Order: sequence, then structure tokens, then C-alpha cells
Amino acid sequence: MPALPKLSNLCVVLVAARNPLNIGAAARAMSNFGFSQIRVVNPYELAFREARSAVGASTLLADAKEFQSVADAIADCTLVVGTTAVGRRALQHPLRRLEPGARIIRRELISTRVALLFGSEKVGLSNEDLSHCHWLLRIPTREEHRSLNLGQAVAICLYELIRDSKPPRQPKKEKRAAARDLERITEVLLEALRASGYLDPRPSAIADEKVRRLIRRLNLSAKDAAIFPGMLRQIVWKLQPC
Amino acid sequence: MPALPKLSNLCVVLVAARNPLNIGAAARAMSNFGFSQIRVVNPYELAFREARSAVGASTLLADAKEFQSVADAIADCTLVVGTTAVGRRALQHPLRRLEPGARIIRRELISTRVALLFGSEKVGLSNEDLSHCHWLLRIPTREEHRSLNLGQAVAICLYELIRDSKPPRQPKKEKRAAARDLERITEVLLEALRASGYLDPRPSAIADEKVRRLIRRLNLSAKDAAIFPGMLRQIVWKLQPC
Repeated sequence: MPALPKLSNLCVVLVAARNPLNIGAAARAMSNFGFSQIRVVNPYELAFREARSAVGASTLLADAKEFQSVADAIADCTLVVGTTAVGRRALQHPLRRLEPGARIIRRELISTRVALLFGSEKVGLSNEDLSHCHWLLRIPTREEHRSLNLGQAVAICLYELIRDSKPPRQPKKEKRAAARDLERITEVLLEALRASGYLDPRPSAIADEKVRRLIRRLNLSAKDAAIFPGMLRQIVWKLQPC
Repeated sequence: MPALPKLSNLCVVLVAARNPLNIGAAARAMSNFGFSQIRVVNPYELAFREARSAVGASTLLADAKEFQSVADAIADCTLVVGTTAVGRRALQHPLRRLEPGARIIRRELISTRVALLFGSEKVGLSNEDLSHCHWLLRIPTREEHRSLNLGQAVAICLYELIRDSKPPRQPKKEKRAAARDLERITEVLLEALRASGYLDPRPSAIADEKVRRLIRRLNLSAKDAAIFPGMLRQIVWKLQPC
């Protein structure tokens, strides 16, 4: 029998959600469609666990994990996908429509953990948040009214993930790098670039995000990702003024 | 070029919705996906027009039409589809999963008006509401947690209707009967059945619904539907005591 996606491998990550009703609605949709892992990053209201609209999803919300940063929330995931209402313009990431994007996610869910990020109701995901993503997902809406309600966006994405119950094509064999490995490379590379004078030594969010995206585009295997930090640390050490 | 579904042919009918936020969320999803006709039957709160969550959908809500009965709300529609969280048990109607059901609706939308009914948050559609439907639609959820939030259910159904932008297969040529024609037949047939002694002369909701469903199962063309009322009226007239 062909392998099936493990729904428990999906982490729904709500970043800076402001409205407890939306957190509850997201949890309820997860319960409706059989997903279980919800993670929240800096929720606006700490009262989110009581979100009333999570009919039948209270266990799920009680188990929700809170994180201080996106990097922490996705550290154990090998594929990180951000959701966006923005069109193709101004995006630094590959953008996939929900249907083909969900096909890729389903294939990954067979064997590895996938994070699906949703931003706050007001502004969506920030550039810093997005820089942690391998690619972005867009629900096909009208040009004139792209912005979906958070709870509805979560429900539609999860529906699309379970819609087609046929097993996806076989996953690629090689194990992919986890987000924490990619972040480690990013950090040491930034250190190297600053120490080398390639980057201004003063901290710059824009530079950090550019480098972070670059590393995500490499599509590194776990094996390859283990090699870089040692190489880079050696370089950083060498760059230190004697 | 093959014909495309006209999204303006879809009427989203909210029956006895209790929460203005859900009405707003439904309107917002309609605007996101390009639908325009919202109809409400006996909403619990008349303040629904101000529903705050309808970001960018206020025009749509301002144009919402209110009706006192399901029959009135769907009178001009040729296909009436109810949504349900209930499983196969205890249903008197054909039940279709969202994906194949949406394919049929898309085909109908090319040329005729379709009503998609959603029931109240607490109890869904009543048996009386359901008796107006040709068939029922089910969003595939976990057995253990079938009941979706109203706003999310609307959003998922509309997403499925626009998901696949390929034109549907050609519609059947013959024009179908509108709901008001079917209801007219139902009424005169009931009158005839009561007058004939087939049915107890005392009003019975269960009998009414059985007959209403029966007429919907006939899948009548507009042409054929025009014939029956005259036939039945003649019968009723003949059944009157002299």
C-alpha cells in the first residue's frame, strides 16, 4: 500500500494572531479535518486557550505550544510554508497556488514535519517571518479582495490538504534539513559575512532576511546541512583579528 | 470557447443564522471568491448588515435580501442544494461529497441559478428546509467532529467552487424547473392527496416534507413542470364534494 500523509506531521503556526475567536476557529477547523498540532508565536491575547469558538477543539487548544519566535516554533520542521494574500509583486519567494502547493505538502507529510504559517489578521506575515519560509502559498481569490479572514484561510488550507484522499506520489528519498539546521547555517554565515566586511558590521534586518532566504532556496539535505556550520565557523575563527 | 460558470448565478442562502459575525464572515468569503448574491431567511439578529467581520464585503451585505421562508428565498433557483454535517444515516436525500457536488453545481451555474443553503449554527437545516433541496452536500470531515463553523463552511464550499478554473463539461441542454414551479406542484398535489383521502386532511409537516422531497427527486424539466399544476388542479376541483 502506498504511504499516506501523516496529518499529525503538520504544525499550524499562528504568528501574532490578535483575535482569540480566530485562534479558536483555526483549532476547530484542525479538529474537523484531523490535524492536531497548533503552535502560536506571540499571540496578542494570552487568553487564547479559552477561545470560545473552538467547539469540540478545546483539547487541541489546551495542547497548543507557545513560542517567542518563528525560528523556535519551526525548529523541528523540514518544510516551512508561509501563507500570503499578496500577489506576485514584491515577493522574494517562490509563490504557489494552494492546490499544487498542497500536493507538495501532502507528499512531505508522509515522512517529515511541515510548518504552515499564518500571519496576524492586520498585516499577515512580516518579512522577517517570511524569511524563514521555503516558499509561499496563496489561496486563489479575486484580485480586488485578496485578504481572507484568518479562521477561514486556515480552514480552506486544511480542507485542501485532506480533499483528495488518494496517496500522493512517492516522496523523495533523501532526508531534508530541519529549520533549526538552516537557521544555524544562516547565523554563522551572517557572522562570517560581517566579520569579512562583505556586510556592514552593524545589525540589519534586511541583510539577515536576504541571507536567510538564500539558505532556504538551497533546498539542503540534512546531510549537506550538517557540513556547512563547521566550515563557516572555521572561517569566522580565521576572520578574527589576531 | 467552452462556457464558464457564472458566479453571479449562485445564491448563498443563510437560514436562521444566529451570529452576525458568521453572516459577515460568509459575505467576506463570497467577496474573496467573486460571488455576489447573499440571501438570508429569518436571521436571528436583524443587525446583520453591520456585521463587523465583513471587511470589504459591506456592499454585498447591504444588497443582501431577506426572506420569511426558504420557499421564497429559492423560488427563482433551478437547483437547490443543502449543506449538512450529518452522515449518511437518517437522511432522506442523496448526499454528495463536496468535490463531486461542486462539479455539478459549476455546470449548472453556466446557465441557471443555484441556491446553496446553510443552516443555523446550532442545529443546521431543519427537515422542512431540507425538503426544498434536490440533494445535499457534505464537506469531508472527521467522523468524530463533523460540525464546522458556519463562516468556515461557507468559505470552503465557495473555494471548492472556484478551485478548478477549467470549464466544466457541457451542461445538459434541457431547461430545468425552478423551485417555485416545483413548490406549486407540491402544494396542489398535497391538496389533491388530502382531498382524496390518501393523506389525513389534518396538516402534517412530515407528510408535506415527504411529498416535497418526492417532487424534487423527479428532476423535472421546466416544460414538464408546467404541465402538472393544471392536471392536479383539475383533480382537486373534481374531488370537491358537490
